Order: sequence, then structure tokens, then C-alpha cells
Amino acid sequence: MHAGRPCCIVALVKLSLYLDMFMSALVRILPLEASPPSLQDNTGDVDRLQRAIVARPEFAGTRLVLPYRQLPTVAAGFRRAGFRGAAVLNEVLPVAASEVEPDGQAYFELVDFLPAAPTCLPAMALDLGSTHLEAVLLDLLSGRELGRATRENSQVVYGADILSRVHLAAGKGGEATEGLGRLHRAVVSDVNALAAELAGQAGLIKEEIRALSVAGNTAMGHFFLNLNPYHLCREPYIPLVNAPGPVAAVDLGLELHPAAPVHVLPGVGSYFGGDLLAGIVACDLDLVAEPAMLIDVGTNAEVVVGCRDWLVACAGAAGPALEGGVAKMGMRAGEGVIERVRIDPAGGELSFQVIGAPPAVAERGGGRQQAVGGVADRPKARGICGSGMIDLMAELFLAGIIDIRGKLRPERMGDRLLNGPDGPAFVVARPGEAADGRAVTVSQVDLDALMRSKAAMYAILGTLMDQVGLPFEELAKIHVAGAFGRHINPRQAVVLGMIPDLPLDTYRSVGNSSLAGARRYLLEAPGRRRIHEISRSITYIELNVNHEFMIRFSGSRFIPHTDRSLFPSVPLPE
Amino acid sequence: MHAGRPCCIVALVKLSLYLDMFMSALVRILPLEASPPSLQDNTGDVDRLQRAIVARPEFAGTRLVLPYRQLPTVAAGFRRAGFRGAAVLNEVLPVAASEVEPDGQAYFELVDFLPAAPTCLPAMALDLGSTHLEAVLLDLLSGRELGRATRENSQVVYGADILSRVHLAAGKGGEATEGLGRLHRAVVSDVNALAAELAGQAGLIKEEIRALSVAGNTAMGHFFLNLNPYHLCREPYIPLVNAPGPVAAVDLGLELHPAAPVHVLPGVGSYFGGDLLAGIVACDLDLVAEPAMLIDVGTNAEVVVGCRDWLVACAGAAGPALEGGVAKMGMRAGEGVIERVRIDPAGGELSFQVIGAPPAVAERGGGRQQAVGGVADRPKARGICGSGMIDLMAELFLAGIIDIRGKLRPERMGDRLLNGPDGPAFVVARPGEAADGRAVTVSQVDLDALMRSKAAMYAILGTLMDQVGLPFEELAKIHVAGAFGRHINPRQAVVLGMIPDLPLDTYRSVGNSSLAGARRYLLEAPGRRRIHEISRSITYIELNVNHEFMIRFSGSRFIPHTDRSLFPSVPLPE
Repeated sequence: MHAGRPCCIVALVKLSLYLDMFMSALVRILPLEASPPSLQDNTGDVDRLQRAIVARPEFAGTRLVLPYRQLPTVAAGFRRAGFRGAAVLNEVLPVAASEVEPDGQAYFELVDFLPAAPTCLPAMALDLGSTHLEAVLLDLLSGRELGRATRENSQVVYGADILSRVHLAAGKGGEATEGLGRLHRAVVSDVNALAAELAGQAGLIKEEIRALSVAGNTAMGHFFLNLNPYHLCREPYIPLVNAPGPVAAVDLGLELHPAAPVHVLPGVGSYFGGDLLAGIVACDLDLVAEPAMLIDVGTNAEVVVGCRDWLVACAGAAGPALEGGVAKMGMRAGEGVIERVRIDPAGGELSFQVIGAPPAVAERGGGRQQAVGGVADRPKARGICGSGMIDLMAELFLAGIIDIRGKLRPERMGDRLLNGPDGPAFVVARPGEAADGRAVTVSQVDLDALMRSKAAMYAILGTLMDQVGLPFEELAKIHVAGAFGRHINPRQAVVLGMIPDLPLDTYRSVGNSSLAGARRYLLEAPGRRRIHEISRSITYIELNVNHEFMIRFSGSRFIPHTDRSLFPSVPLPE
Repeated sequence: MHAGRPCCIVALVKLSLYLDMFMSALVRILPLEASPPSLQDNTGDVDRLQRAIVARPEFAGTRLVLPYRQLPTVAAGFRRAGFRGAAVLNEVLPVAASEVEPDGQAYFELVDFLPAAPTCLPAMALDLGSTHLEAVLLDLLSGRELGRATRENSQVVYGADILSRVHLAAGKGGEATEGLGRLHRAVVSDVNALAAELAGQAGLIKEEIRALSVAGNTAMGHFFLNLNPYHLCREPYIPLVNAPGPVAAVDLGLELHPAAPVHVLPGVGSYFGGDLLAGIVACDLDLVAEPAMLIDVGTNAEVVVGCRDWLVACAGAAGPALEGGVAKMGMRAGEGVIERVRIDPAGGELSFQVIGAPPAVAERGGGRQQAVGGVADRPKARGICGSGMIDLMAELFLAGIIDIRGKLRPERMGDRLLNGPDGPAFVVARPGEAADGRAVTVSQVDLDALMRSKAAMYAILGTLMDQVGLPFEELAKIHVAGAFGRHINPRQAVVLGMIPDLPLDTYRSVGNSSLAGARRYLLEAPGRRRIHEISRSITYIELNVNHEFMIRFSGSRFIPHTDRSLFPSVPLPE
């Protein structure tokens, strides 16, 4: 520590950040003392409280709504506290403000009165994925993270992919079925379990959680809110709602504080949900001067390009090979799974790297532990994950083992060729290197699937850039979200022609940007306004019916591309 | 009919009234046609609907809230109707708008979408009395009355008076008890029964009723909303809430349309409820240039004086003799009940008038049929009601049969003197004139009770006028509400010294002004704003602890008063 002044400045900055956050969180604590009732002032208890709140400069001119269900709680709390303590207020942004008035002023729901301002105000941010849920518990007063947890989406028993769940939820005539209720209850029960786990980590109970923000794709948002998703997957692909208002936790069967507002972040279309808007805000794409891009690969590849002046988005099926963080083919990243592959350009020797056992106290959802060592002490290979596949395919191409169409060349495979029932396969890990003594192989079928995915991805990116009339070189940054961004080696993806041939520092892995956006939604009023503003202003292009996309897709089904000039840095293979 | 022009003008005036009403009712029907979804416009269904609504000039700049529970209904209705039809919107006035912003703009709840604009929009206005409920069913589109019904408040089995019900509802420590739930359910079930009856009259079902406005005293409002009334009857007499926001019918267990907003009209204090504010608006007391007065006798005597510039109110126990429309003593007005008494100043002959059988198809809650005829064919007397008592007492005074203290003078009573166990009694109807062959009598105890009531009433009026610094003569009008106003003979009340000695045309019976106000609340936006404005601006004087009231009460316990100069028109008795 140095002498006085700098410390003071730090303290002041911290205090001002604290105050900013305090007055900016989705749920506010307002310490107040009201004049007690008397014969001269017989105002009713809750009217007295409301009067005291709107008398505060920070709430002047705002409207208060006191939900009927909270009326007894608020009144009893206020009286028990002797008319002094702390009001709990939920901010509500009117989602349907007309487009000419995008900055519709927030109003507030008065939901509780506590005898004193609490020292912690827990709230939960959730990334509601179709295969996995990831959540953090935050203290809205300090912004501090109190816990973090992930969980599988138990809806998968009703259908691995979103489409089959949509079909389960709605009958042929378009009416909602009992299946919708089952999907709804499944995910609500998952969120309750996550909430219990997070609360446990923080030494709380889940009923103390005062708010929940949810970033998910549009279909997941519909399931979570128990809304009929029938038209999501039928042309012209229309959600029941883009921007649902907040819902009280109790109305969804969530075992949080009953008055906790649950905000499902607004989406833009059936294939462009609140998870993406959350990501845009997390990357500040809507604030930057130079155009940048955000790529998120989930159920679909969802891509946004833009800057503070404009934003254009699209989404398209990039193939199951990339879904869930390049994890569908082979197996999902986990212990013993091959995630990096190298083929020595000189000797043609193949080496790989597998994911080691995770530490006992988990670094949840984050990086992986690598274990690279001697054959004896390193974990045996059990399979290969998506990022391993991309590595492998790029190396196979550079080594001349596959051709520009992605087809295996048996004559170049030596003893790594295995002829199976599905045709030729490439042995990545020999039996001695494998956990169960059976070789880990990749077949032509697997390679073809990845080829389609990589072609779709590049076609999506190219179509989008063409729509906005910019070359890739104009992009200052390309944010790559999620597990895909975390694990992919951009250089290898460039070699495959999956992503454009730009300086590698253009690419930035931004982790779970949906969760980061959901978190920001809880903590920062400007973040909330930005998300609603983006939902109104972003331009969405439907690729499912885009002719140009199909043309670009064809050209992209080669490594790196039919037009090699697009990938000057990629060497010709041997 | 005359020639063209006047007819046209009438038609135009009617149309403009219709449009006024249409755009002014608590629930609005907005016919609209939205552009259908397409690949170029993938806005979600309800977002599309909301956008179409706020694009309409009459809703420009207003906020829409779509309650979560109504989301599936609205979305399904909108799609089923092919994106054209009629939106159903509930107006919400923010009740806690700060006092510096009393004209807080209304916002709207979007609760339904119909394939076409309905031809009728039923809504119910309710006077929620502690002994009786009276309701009308209205068509919000035309303002037409569709039905009218009354019903006893079934809470009376839990306690005839409000105080005993309050004690039932809250324990000694102030906590709400199961008794509160019982009282709540009792009155909700009454309202459901009324709704069914009204709907039946109109050929509808009660679930078609789209709104409910409720004018009641503050305690009844608390019971109806299931709110703890503990502090209502404990100094300093504080309601849990003066101005509750609207509640969805389904949240109260009301079997109306589930999204029907239930508005309990705001009150001012424990003894000055929404029924009185409704009455003020019904009499336009807040609009007139010259000061006027409103007297409503229910559980208490509640009195307001004022004009467009100011309003001052008070309430006080005027004694049970006047409660429920001068009906507690003897019996409530009904067939065979004496309501008018006359003692011939010359011969001292007593004649009376009883209430005849009501017509088969009822003129509900309205006037009575009198049957005055020969002894043989007129209904026999069964008892005497409050207005009959006032008549009787005034006549007894003028005939010198009671003294200025209201005490019977046996020496003047002749054969109408009956000495019973409670002391002397006066025979009003002889056994031959009585239904059961037993004389209808009034005892000294009965007369004493009425003396206290009349003294309290005059003391209340005098105290209030003294507080505002005006003599009675400055009052342009005195509106007398309810059964009390309908049945009382102002002249006789003046003789007793119950009400001031003013020209009789100063007094105006206004019927059920609470119900009239509740009705106006449903139909007219200005009426709603006025009620909320009055609730914020009216001055309320607590008489329970007013010293001057006690002094005035003493002077008023004589007929007409200790100060005879206050009643110049009342002759000295014989």
C-alpha cells in the first residue's frame, strides 16, 4: 500500500461503482424511514410507504405497482419494522413501449419491506441451453459472484434436439399438448435444482434468491414459460412472443423468493433468442465504433455483425457436428477425450492430447486440465470431441491424408487405415492408447458431417457479410462464444476454411457470453435498456430460405474453399 | 319527429356520447388488424399485437402490460383470429403516483383478443355494504344497465357489526386469523351469487363479466381483499391500504372473467371508505362552485362538505338507530312496516302508513309501494322502521307527548300508554291494527337511542361546518344518500333537530350514491381520475377524538336543540 491519496481515490472509485450498481440492479433496496401514523395523518400503511418512496429523489416521478399477492407481506413487514427499514423494489421495463419511444421509463414493483437493509441480495443469472444449463449466483449489492453451477437439461429425455421437443409440445393442429407441460416442468425442476445448489454454495436457501435472468434460445424460452412453440419451426418461423415481460417466480413454479421477478431476455426470432442478445451486450457489439462480429454455436450457428450504428444477425443450421461446443461428433469434451491432434509435417508422426481428470474442487465450466506425458501415466483415450475433430481434420489435410473434398486417401494412411463396415476409417488412437483397448477411429461419415458443418459456417458468415456489404477484413474483432470459442484452435479452423483467413488475434474467445449478458441484465440498468433496444433495432436475416446461402454453401464444401484466394495463409497440402 | 336537422344533431350527440364512453370505460375494446407475419417480418405474435396497439393514435405513448397468465390466451386468440379482431385492454391508473404528479398517465393491461368486436361488454358495479350488497350489471359499450340485484351480506353470521368482524379477523397480537379468511370467502361467495343473478338477468354467464368496481367502507374493502383490518379500529385508526391497485378476479376467487380487473375504490381513512368517495363523485361535490354537503348514513354517519376548490370530510358513530337506512330500531323497511306517522294537531288522532307488498316484478332497491286505505284492506303493521321512528318522534314532540329531552309524558298519552317491563311505552299500532294481534309499541329505551343518534348527527354536521368556517346557510345543497335519504322526511328530521333548519329544497335524496359512483368508475375515465384525485386531496377530520364534537353532542340532546334560535321554523310544542 502506498500513501493516502491513491488509496482514497481507489476507495472513492469503488464506492461510486458500488453506488452505481446499487441504483442500477434489477432489484433495489431502498432504506427509508416514514413518518409514523397519527390522528393527524391517517394514511394507510402501504400508501404511507409508497408516499415515502416516491418522495425520494431517485424515485421521483416513477410509478409504483404493488402486486396484490405481496400486499399483506409488504404491509406486515412495514408495520412490524416500525415504519423504518428497507423497501425491496423490482424494476420493470415496459417491453412493449412503442418504437417511437424506445426509452420508456422504468417503473417499479414494491414487493417486500425488511426491518433493515440486507447485506446481500442474491440473484441468479441463467444460461438456459438446450443440452446444458449454466448459472451464477450474484450479490446484487456488490456484484460479487456467490456461486456457479451447471446441470444437464433434463428435457433431453423428451428429445435430444429442440425440434423433437417442439413437436412433443404441440399437436398437429397447432394446439399445445400435455407434452408442453412436461417440458416446462422438467426445466423448472432443473432450475430449482441449480438454485438449491447455488444457494448451498453461498450458505443460503434458494427462497432467498430475489431475481432470475434467463438467456436462452427462443424455443427454450417458450418451454420455460410454458408457451406453445408450434409456429417456431414452421415457415415463417414466428415466436409466440419475442419480449415477454417479467413473471413472478411463483407463477412458474420456481422455488425462489415468490416475488422474485423472472426475466426471460428478449429474442429477435425463432432462431435468434435472448441468449444471442445477451451475447451482443456482453461483447459490447452495440457500442463499438468499428464493425465486429459475434459467433455463437449452439443448436444453430448464430452470428451477428455490427457496431453502435447498426446490427445485422442471422442464424442457420451449422450441422450437429458443432452443436453444444463441437461436441456431438465422437463425444462431448470430458476426461480421456482427445481434444488436440498434431501430425508432424516431417515424419508424419501423429500425437494427441487428452483431457485429464478435472480437479477435485471444480473450476466449473471453465478450462480443462491437460495431461500430456508418457504413454504409461497419461489417461487413455476414450473418444474425440469436436475441437479434436477440427484439429485432426486440419492436420489430415495438411498431411495430404484427406483431399480438398475431405475424403480419406487410403494410400496415404499406412497402418492407420482401418476398413470397417462403413468404409475406410482413420485410427487416431491405437488400441494400446485407448481406455478400453479398442482403437479410437474417425470414419468418412464423421468427416463428411464435419465438412457440412464447416461449409455451413463459412457460408453463413459470407452471406451475412455480403448482406451488410463489408469484406471480412473490415472486422476489427470476431468474438467466438461458448465451448466452441473456448476450445477451437482458430488457426486449424482457418485451415479447414471454416472461418475467414484473418490475423489470428482478430479471434477472441469470450466464454459463455449468454451467461455474461444475463448477469449484466441483473446488475446494470444500461445493459437492460441496451438489450431491449437491440431487440427492437437489430435486422434479422432468415437463412433457411436464403438462396445466396445455398450457393455459398456449395463453394465451401472444399478445404479450405473452391476459391483458394480467400485463404492465402493456408499452404497447399503435400 | 320534426324535420332533418334536430334529429341529426341528436344522433351526433348520441354518437359522440357513445364514442366518449367507448374510449373512457375501464375496459376498452380496440378493433384492429395487424400485418400478418412473414419471412420479412418475423415479429412474435404478441409483440406484433402490442406493436399494432401502440401504433394507434389513441394508445400512442401508453404502456402495455401483458399479464403472464393471459399470455397464452391473448396469443392463441390473436392467431386463431388471423391477426385481425379486437383487443381487450384494461385501464390501470397508477394509484401511487406521487402527489406532485396527480395526473399520472394510465397504462393498459392487454388481457384478451377476440375474433371480432363484441356487441356487449358486461361489467359489474357493486355497493359492498356491511349488511347488504347492491349491484348493477352494465354494458361498458353503451352504458346500458343490464341487471340489478341486492343480497344480504352473509358475513352477518360472523358478527352483525363491523367491529365484531374486525375482532374475528385479527388476533389480540394483531396477526390475521383464519376468521379473516372466512369473512373474505363469505363476501366473495356473495359477490359470485350476485354476479350469477345479474348475468342470468341479462342472459349471460358470470364468467363473461369483464370488470368489477367495488365501493364499500374501509373495513369491508379489507375483508373483500383478505387484508388484515386490525389497526382500523385502534387509535390512530389506520387502514392497511387506502388505495389498493386493481386485482385480477381470479386472485380473489371471483368467478367472473379470470382477467376481469377488480377495483376497490380508494378510501381516505378507517371510517371513510371508497363508498363515500364514490358518493362525492356521484354528487359532483368536487365540481360545484358553491359549497354543498353529502350525508351518508351507513355503519357510521359520514359527511363531506366542499366544492371544486376544497373538500373536508368526517365520520362518526351516529348510533345504531340510523344504521342501514334508519332501519335498525324496530325493523328494516319491508312489507307491513310503519314508515309514516301523523298525529293530528287538532284532535290528537294518530294515523300511520305501512309499506305494502312490493310489485311482483321488483323495482329493486328503489321506492316502496304504499298502501293507505281502510283498516280492513290495508296490510297490518308488523313493526316500525327508522324513518317511521323519526316521523313518530317529531309528531310526538309537536303533540307534546314527549318533552324536549325526548322523554315520554305519560299524562299526555291517554290509552296509548303501556307500562311494560322496561317502563312506559307508546302504542303506535293497536292490537287490531297489528299483523300478529299484538300492539306495535315504542319504548323509552328506543326513543333514547334515537335521541343519541339524532344528537350525534347534528353534532357531526355542526363540528364539520365549524371546522371549515361556514354557516349552514352557505350550503347550496345537502345530498342525502342511501335508504336514509330515500325514506326520511326532511321536515320531521328538522323538527327533531337532527339536520339543520334550512329550506327543505336544500335537501336532495340521491339514492345509492356509492353504487352510482362505482358505476361511474366503470364508465368514465374522468370519474376514475376524480376519485383518485379526491382521495389524495380531501381533508379528513377524526371525530372519535374531537373535543368540540363532544360539546356539540351535549347541546344536541334536546329537541330540537338547547339553542332554539338554530331552529326558527320549529314551533313550540303544545
